[in-house]
Amino acid sequence: MHTAPPCHILPVVPHSPEQLLLELFAIFVSAKLVGEMFERLRLPSVLGEILAGIALGPYALGWIQPSDTIYSVAELGAVFVLFSAGLETSPRDLIRVGNKAVQVAVAGIVLPFILGFAYMKLRGDASSEAIFVGAAMVATSVGITARVLGDLHVLSTRTAKIILGAAVFDDILGMLLLAVVAGVAAHGRPQWLHLGILTAEAAGFALFMIFVAPRIVRRMEPRVEQLSTHNASLIVALALCLFLSWLAAQIGMAAIIGAFFAGLVFADYAPQWNLLPRVDGITEFLAPFFFFAIGTRLNVRMFTGNVLVAAIIVSLLAIVSKVIGCGLPLLGEGWATVFRVGVGMTPRGEVALIVALVGLQSRIVLQSTYAIVVFMTAVTTLIAPPLLRYLFRGEKQEHDQPSATAQVRL
Amino acid sequence: MHTAPPCHILPVVPHSPEQLLLELFAIFVSAKLVGEMFERLRLPSVLGEILAGIALGPYALGWIQPSDTIYSVAELGAVFVLFSAGLETSPRDLIRVGNKAVQVAVAGIVLPFILGFAYMKLRGDASSEAIFVGAAMVATSVGITARVLGDLHVLSTRTAKIILGAAVFDDILGMLLLAVVAGVAAHGRPQWLHLGILTAEAAGFALFMIFVAPRIVRRMEPRVEQLSTHNASLIVALALCLFLSWLAAQIGMAAIIGAFFAGLVFADYAPQWNLLPRVDGITEFLAPFFFFAIGTRLNVRMFTGNVLVAAIIVSLLAIVSKVIGCGLPLLGEGWATVFRVGVGMTPRGEVALIVALVGLQSRIVLQSTYAIVVFMTAVTTLIAPPLLRYLFRGEKQEHDQPSATAQVRL
Repeated sequence: MHTAPPCHILPVVPHSPEQLLLELFAIFVSAKLVGEMFERLRLPSVLGEILAGIALGPYALGWIQPSDTIYSVAELGAVFVLFSAGLETSPRDLIRVGNKAVQVAVAGIVLPFILGFAYMKLRGDASSEAIFVGAAMVATSVGITARVLGDLHVLSTRTAKIILGAAVFDDILGMLLLAVVAGVAAHGRPQWLHLGILTAEAAGFALFMIFVAPRIVRRMEPRVEQLSTHNASLIVALALCLFLSWLAAQIGMAAIIGAFFAGLVFADYAPQWNLLPRVDGITEFLAPFFFFAIGTRLNVRMFTGNVLVAAIIVSLLAIVSKVIGCGLPLLGEGWATVFRVGVGMTPRGEVALIVALVGLQSRIVLQSTYAIVVFMTAVTTLIAPPLLRYLFRGEKQEHDQPSATAQVRL
Repeated sequence: MHTAPPCHILPVVPHSPEQLLLELFAIFVSAKLVGEMFERLRLPSVLGEILAGIALGPYALGWIQPSDTIYSVAELGAVFVLFSAGLETSPRDLIRVGNKAVQVAVAGIVLPFILGFAYMKLRGDASSEAIFVGAAMVATSVGITARVLGDLHVLSTRTAKIILGAAVFDDILGMLLLAVVAGVAAHGRPQWLHLGILTAEAAGFALFMIFVAPRIVRRMEPRVEQLSTHNASLIVALALCLFLSWLAAQIGMAAIIGAFFAGLVFADYAPQWNLLPRVDGITEFLAPFFFFAIGTRLNVRMFTGNVLVAAIIVSLLAIVSKVIGCGLPLLGEGWATVFRVGVGMTPRGEVALIVALVGLQSRIVLQSTYAIVVFMTAVTTLIAPPLLRYLFRGEKQEHDQPSATAQVRL
């Protein structure tokens, strides 16, 4: 086995309010500036925010050494990114969605995981490393895919609906896998009995949150509206988000799983309770610290020889496995659909990065493995938008409906 | 002179994400629960949130020992409370508002400060302590007054407009005084030359932010709308909030002054840019940690003998000085107006608490002085709502207009 990786990051405790504010300002603005540059180049801004962290962080220019407080804020940022994602995922739509989306999601999870796991084992890595890479190759970023499809005005097409439906299931299945990964992180290596219990626990948690919890919220709803507190509905939602994040972490899953399901539970009440703009405000403020922090932990000097080769191969596997895995259940619908769905499912997003971070923080995963995952995330996220634009060319007029944006939520 | 007070609070560094999340959850929920109880008793919920901190904090039950991270989050909460307040204060309305409001504001500042300062000096306290108490007696809480007047449906009356206009000026003048206080805090005692420079600096900062900065924002506006970043207007506003908070702290004023003026600058664009719901989301999330933290620093065992007497006398002075000071310029308008405006200006709010906290954190002010200020804030905030309800009885029908809520912003 291997020992814990060396840790070069010395967290600096801020000495005064000024220093904390300056740190917050510098990180927020640099992340958003590079993000804006990326948007102008028609690249996902999330990658720009990560790049800002890489460039200004301790491994490159060394201008910003995030303090412990910043890492705590970043953690909270991850929680709210997933809470926001959950708020846009209605459990009822999820239950109603067709077989196809589930098939696409499952096939799109099994193949990448197996290929990622197998390749890392072939390279001679430990099982724990291989599981982390496999898990990181699983999750599809709904956010990036949805935004690209929306920009192309093809959200109302059947293909787009399959992609978005599958991406949502993918996220949930990815979350369950993350629970397993977190279990691995806690024990240093996969413990198969414990892993079985965790999977059952995670599945039970997910089923409860999808089928039971929304009914509880429906019963609670009149009482929430009777509360005297200003903005009571927002307060209740935030309290549940914090509680479920803690609970998920406590029973051995990652905190963000709890946050995602907390969002899911309130998704049907989000418009009525006007939750979205207000929670989005919090997410907009906190998320850049999370993506920046991801960058600061990436040692770019890692990308030499072996590691660079591995990163490129893992990236290729990540693309191929999603295109084949997700396309397979759709072979009867023609090659155009196969490739569109396959490519649409390719971008790995926040979840892949969080998986990697869980591994790095618990010192189970080497810095080189972390670098491989971040590299793979960047490549898959960069490659999808132009490819999708190419594959969907000419599709726009045929299926477009006036209320296209109303279709985003499946 | 006196030495720094003993510090019994041992900040606990959270060891894991679970602990931080549990801490956040426990504080958020307990603050909001006691706040809800207060709302039901028709008392201001802010006091409930402080009480939760007093009760669960290290000086009473000792269940929650806030970590350093929580205190950082609390600091950020104070920044956003003032940023939100600034967003609801249009500089144009402020410039347009009548002489009367300014007279009421100035008289309502001079008298409380002098009485507070004089009493503390008479008690034998140091000048720095006396200045802190005087400064804390100055600021009127616009939020609480506006909510009570809104509940009574009298916002459109001339009296209400004078109160709200004066309260806004009061806040600004209170901010300037806070800058002075922060200068005292930095040097241990009032340095009159330095104090003069600081006052000029603060006044220049305020005038720049009221008269010049909004024009800059007006010119910037088309460019902000051209930005590719999602939610660009919110991002720009948040960035300026962090920057001005840091700048204000850097040039020797309190960070929240910068946050307040950052809000003021964007106030005219808040509806168009849809800033309010999104910034309010952040404030709703962060503010409870600030008010809870205020409570955790209050040693209730301080309230014995001397200190309790001083707290009661300071509270009485705070009420009498505001009623007389603010009522004086209105003697020509009848006793009803004098008392309504005077009582309406009585509740001290967040600013008084922040003044006290600045003093305590920089170890310039004794714990007993901090306790006196918190006591005075609680008393004046508790006494105003029922008194206002009594003084405005029967007023409702005469002046009420359908669009009463639209009148909140002067």
